[in-house]
Amino acid sequence: MTPTITAFQRSPDGGRGQARDMRVRWALEEVGQPYDVRLVSFSAMKQPAHLAVNPFGQIPTYEEGDLCLFESGSIVFHIAERHAGLLPEDANARSRAITWMFAALNTMEPPILELVTAVILERDAPWHAACLPLVEDRIRKRLAELSRCLGDSDWLDGAFSAGDLIMVAVLRRLNRSGLLDEFPNLAAYVARGEARPAFRRAFDAQLAVAAAAAAG
Amino acid sequence: MTPTITAFQRSPDGGRGQARDMRVRWALEEVGQPYDVRLVSFSAMKQPAHLAVNPFGQIPTYEEGDLCLFESGSIVFHIAERHAGLLPEDANARSRAITWMFAALNTMEPPILELVTAVILERDAPWHAACLPLVEDRIRKRLAELSRCLGDSDWLDGAFSAGDLIMVAVLRRLNRSGLLDEFPNLAAYVARGEARPAFRRAFDAQLAVAAAAAAG
Repeated sequence: MTPTITAFQRSPDGGRGQARDMRVRWALEEVGQPYDVRLVSFSAMKQPAHLAVNPFGQIPTYEEGDLCLFESGSIVFHIAERHAGLLPEDANARSRAITWMFAALNTMEPPILELVTAVILERDAPWHAACLPLVEDRIRKRLAELSRCLGDSDWLDGAFSAGDLIMVAVLRRLNRSGLLDEFPNLAAYVARGEARPAFRRAFDAQLAVAAAAAAG
Repeated sequence: MTPTITAFQRSPDGGRGQARDMRVRWALEEVGQPYDVRLVSFSAMKQPAHLAVNPFGQIPTYEEGDLCLFESGSIVFHIAERHAGLLPEDANARSRAITWMFAALNTMEPPILELVTAVILERDAPWHAACLPLVEDRIRKRLAELSRCLGDSDWLDGAFSAGDLIMVAVLRRLNRSGLLDEFPNLAAYVARGEARPAFRRAFDAQLAVAAAAAAG
């Protein structure tokens, strides 16, 4: 059965692959699972039909038969559990890969989300200039810890896993901040993720949506 | 084999059960798995021995034979996968319970962490008074969505699951903010979680550590 995911009709990032459908597209491409996409407008996202699938009125969602899921982390995990290629077979290695998924979403992403909020929502606030360096320092602390842990390895724990997929997707939110450049091994890690053929296919697919929206 | 978790030697919350070892203790109590606790001081958390177990220098960690895990979400999931009682047997219901774990950690907790940061780290910042209502409104938006989704159900999706466990633990961080009281069904949901015998045992265990630290 071909699953259907949702994505922004007009992504706020204009196709830079920062919206969270990118994570799901990438996972589906990694495992070779075809998928359909239903595009959702900002107004439709807050309507009952979409809220029935995602109570927080966000994308992505994942529908497959009578299964409806939301939360990109959960959807990527669902895909990784049901296909080979995104989680190791060894039980301990599998648990560690899942740990990196949670680390990306609950330790790395929260301060990065603060930065996104500060830059987008509070750009004109009188405290913006004073507050920004504090947020950046909180991110730097986590990047330094992650950088030390990664060292000169290609991926966080052995072969590429769903943990790396989520971590790279989270770190990519920093692409325009300059913060990643302070940690060359992390910048190389993100570039390594972006160079994967499955990433490229997923990126091109979401970029095509953005291009169509811009043309329309 | 009895797993060993780590917890603060002196929890910053003084035993209110806000530190993330509480989530792991609660999960272990729900499934009836005995555990050992190794207490870690703030200075020891930043030393190589602890960083080898958790690269971010945090608690909790989980050690069981040659398996070392960190991230409370991952540890709770590991426990839930290996014992009955925290994840439904039906495959779709299981995926939905896992979705609630991710929703708690990646949609609900980030704005709540912002509030914790604002109250603890930026209390004396000149922008504190102006910034706080914006953070609280971001939390209110998510609480309203969660409240509507929960309705008058006891738990988020059928029987109590690891998704409820993490969600209640995340919402408890708001206990002193007054925000939960604006959503009576969420306040009742948290109280329902706190009334579970496994929660009480876990809470008492972490409170005993805090009491010993205060006495010592």
